[in-house]
Amino acid sequence: ALLWKSRSTFTSFDVFLQMGWGDLGAFGEPSKETPNLDQMASEGMLFLDFYTANPLCSPSRAALLTGRLPVRNGFYTTNAHARNAYTPQDIVGGIPESELLLPELLKKAGYISKIIGKWHLGHRPQFHPLKHGFDEWFGSPNCHFGPFDNRALPNIPLYRDWEMIGRYYEDFKIDLKTGEANLTQIYLKEALDFISKQQASQQPFFLYWAIDATHAPVYASKQFLGTSQRGLYGDAVREIDDSIGKILKHLQKLGISENTFVFFTSDNGAALISAPRQGGSNGRFLCGKQTTFEGGMREPAIAWWPGHIPAGGVSHQLGNVMDLFTTSLSLAGLQPPSDRQIDGIDLLPAILQGKLIDRPIFYYRGNEMMAVRVGLYKAHYWTWSNSWEEYSKGIDFCPGQNVSGVTTHTQEEHTTLPLLFHLGRDPGEKYPLSFASNEYQRAMEQISVIVQQHKVTMVPGEPQLNMCDRAVMNWSPPGCEKLGKCLKPPKSDPKKCFWPH
Amino acid sequence: ALLWKSRSTFTSFDVFLQMGWGDLGAFGEPSKETPNLDQMASEGMLFLDFYTANPLCSPSRAALLTGRLPVRNGFYTTNAHARNAYTPQDIVGGIPESELLLPELLKKAGYISKIIGKWHLGHRPQFHPLKHGFDEWFGSPNCHFGPFDNRALPNIPLYRDWEMIGRYYEDFKIDLKTGEANLTQIYLKEALDFISKQQASQQPFFLYWAIDATHAPVYASKQFLGTSQRGLYGDAVREIDDSIGKILKHLQKLGISENTFVFFTSDNGAALISAPRQGGSNGRFLCGKQTTFEGGMREPAIAWWPGHIPAGGVSHQLGNVMDLFTTSLSLAGLQPPSDRQIDGIDLLPAILQGKLIDRPIFYYRGNEMMAVRVGLYKAHYWTWSNSWEEYSKGIDFCPGQNVSGVTTHTQEEHTTLPLLFHLGRDPGEKYPLSFASNEYQRAMEQISVIVQQHKVTMVPGEPQLNMCDRAVMNWSPPGCEKLGKCLKPPKSDPKKCFWPH
Repeated sequence: ALLWKSRSTFTSFDVFLQMGWGDLGAFGEPSKETPNLDQMASEGMLFLDFYTANPLCSPSRAALLTGRLPVRNGFYTTNAHARNAYTPQDIVGGIPESELLLPELLKKAGYISKIIGKWHLGHRPQFHPLKHGFDEWFGSPNCHFGPFDNRALPNIPLYRDWEMIGRYYEDFKIDLKTGEANLTQIYLKEALDFISKQQASQQPFFLYWAIDATHAPVYASKQFLGTSQRGLYGDAVREIDDSIGKILKHLQKLGISENTFVFFTSDNGAALISAPRQGGSNGRFLCGKQTTFEGGMREPAIAWWPGHIPAGGVSHQLGNVMDLFTTSLSLAGLQPPSDRQIDGIDLLPAILQGKLIDRPIFYYRGNEMMAVRVGLYKAHYWTWSNSWEEYSKGIDFCPGQNVSGVTTHTQEEHTTLPLLFHLGRDPGEKYPLSFASNEYQRAMEQISVIVQQHKVTMVPGEPQLNMCDRAVMNWSPPGCEKLGKCLKPPKSDPKKCFWPH
Repeated sequence: ALLWKSRSTFTSFDVFLQMGWGDLGAFGEPSKETPNLDQMASEGMLFLDFYTANPLCSPSRAALLTGRLPVRNGFYTTNAHARNAYTPQDIVGGIPESELLLPELLKKAGYISKIIGKWHLGHRPQFHPLKHGFDEWFGSPNCHFGPFDNRALPNIPLYRDWEMIGRYYEDFKIDLKTGEANLTQIYLKEALDFISKQQASQQPFFLYWAIDATHAPVYASKQFLGTSQRGLYGDAVREIDDSIGKILKHLQKLGISENTFVFFTSDNGAALISAPRQGGSNGRFLCGKQTTFEGGMREPAIAWWPGHIPAGGVSHQLGNVMDLFTTSLSLAGLQPPSDRQIDGIDLLPAILQGKLIDRPIFYYRGNEMMAVRVGLYKAHYWTWSNSWEEYSKGIDFCPGQNVSGVTTHTQEEHTTLPLLFHLGRDPGEKYPLSFASNEYQRAMEQISVIVQQHKVTMVPGEPQLNMCDRAVMNWSPPGCEKLGKCLKPPKSDPKKCFWPH
């Protein structure tokens, strides 16, 4: 109870781009090259049943910061059935004004909030993170895709607060041949400096460290290149691991580790289409990013808070990135908004008292609820990996894996008789339960009620990821004049975005 | 150096039937239900690159106790090319008289040796473990397959030392419907009693605890039934984990933990044909038991020796069950035999000083070297999962997995241009390196020399697993008269054994 009122409780999230469950030593990666994260787990609590809200980055991050499913907060598309969508440079939409983001709410408790790294909730002026509660920003609005030549298409800008300070590949180099880039070191320094500053001013803070080294094109600093058994991807993981260790040690050195709740997780499963050089591992889980199989949405997750969280704890609480919204409010002594549906739950009882709170996990792909997990059971109402057309071109979200009737290349409807898996006996989703079994009947009775309730009360938000327009790209971000980096946008030509999977 | 001379150094191996890499929490099993093994790892050293000598039980155990590859010690067949073979009840062969087993050699240093559980090196009188150096035995000569009706075919006997004391399913019950059996508790008590007795008499000992609860038909004691998220298989794992914890605590309580080297590993990868109810997990590795992919031969492995092994250590030493032979001799201050080729190496420099010893791992299937690992590279000279004929009947060693050109259903020869994988970047063997790459050329140059050397110097032993005869089954084991359990063998009719895969 004391914690809920404390003004000196800080919160820090480390959310990484598409690191998979299987990328951490603590989760069984065979090269075991994440000593700092493994130590963080041994000093804190490992969540074994933790999920992201979407198998893709933008919706997952929107859910993290709003505590709401993407289908509620608008981070989805209705252009086609069950399609993943995100915020590329030509996206017209972004986080709606009506959504309440965690940093906006934390202000009421005197928190200063900073985002370091990828925002991904829209790059047009009205979507700027400082318009949505953050006080500081160092990073980029979009993924560091590229390279572009900055003539036909603009390179992604990096911002400090309101203005851009350069662009990827031009001012912030990533050597695509060697994978060398010192960006994680820059992001680390930003984090350490911010923490020092807040500690000095005795200001409670919220830091959202959203770095992107493990997203293709994967990169690492020179000192980490070639240090991993796993190649460049592993080098990037090592650098992130090292950075996390430095952040935690910094909190300890400043004497505020017992006041700072730190959570590590990822925004979607490892991108197996980029594996092995540019993609991670989802361990034994099925498929990866873009899919609603476990490999697409089950995430490594560690909570760390010395003196509060029992060291070496393990939790089977079904958790979701949306819970970080509600849990953080709880830490700050705030209530979640009561004028809207919040999907995140307060994890503190699970973290501090080892309680298990009953709640389902919904697996959405765009506008469709594909699957639901209740307890150890997961029911697939729709299955799809990707289309035959894509698959025949070599785009494979489940390389080396093929579960007949499950990893389907057409959208298969199972709404009358969902495919049911027991994730305890079968975490890899390989053995659907017999429709005729008592176990199936019993489990589905329970699940059906939950799904029906969910669907009946669902009020979808206005979809934000339907329209694309090349004119809205990062041609002339604020501050571009000072740098001589303004580009002339083409004429507006809004179109429905094409979302292939 | 002191250790090598010490007469008070004990050795204990825990070797489990077909537990897979992915079955331990420390190796990433998502339900994380092995707290005792995980603690053993955190107090000892985790081997991440440890192998068995064969993807099947009997040859693997023969290799463990002789320090030699099955193709040398005779535990293979030449009936057909590259077939797995073991010691079913009708096998004529067994461990040759000419082989020197670890307990025979340890006698020279005054060790008393006991095997508890499955022997599996032949069940005819000349192959009895007490004829091969063990001083005590409690367990069975073969797998607890069944049930047989003990009329058409005999049930497997359990021995105490020289004589049988009953049979599986008759005197030692396994409820095939519920999976209930208290055998692990009996085996545990045998272990604790043996350790107590040796400690009381200040006698150095070697205990080989070779239990079989995780081999189909899987079983667990009543108190463990239903306690796992993973079903019956998980219940069996929990009971084994609990038993290991009790053995280690017993050593500590007796004050001999610092004199006792304990090693935990498995004899082959998880049997995926029995999954999910009766089979374990190989984590992210490809396929399982019966195959020479990583899932068939890479094993969980933990060394424990408080006061000697640094706690929380992790080793990337390429290890093999055969090394336990050489390492144990080294612990006892003995040299390995010099009159024959020994494949096992002394792991103590790796365990105690963190050294990495260069050595290859050979993956055999019967009489064929299918693959070799050198450093992080693994070259497949032959690939085969199983035949189309078996596969079409639903026998699948790689359920849900299919790597084109790798998990082949015909025996594919790659001897001129081996399939090469980098196990650091690609532990799942999904992405063969391009034959045209410099990396391929460089790695294969090194590997070819090692393979050539291996083949040139290979002197295969007389194959022991070629002949089968129903007359040699366990009809009338010694001691059967006292129990009224002698059965009349049929007329001898020796035939070549049929090994389908």
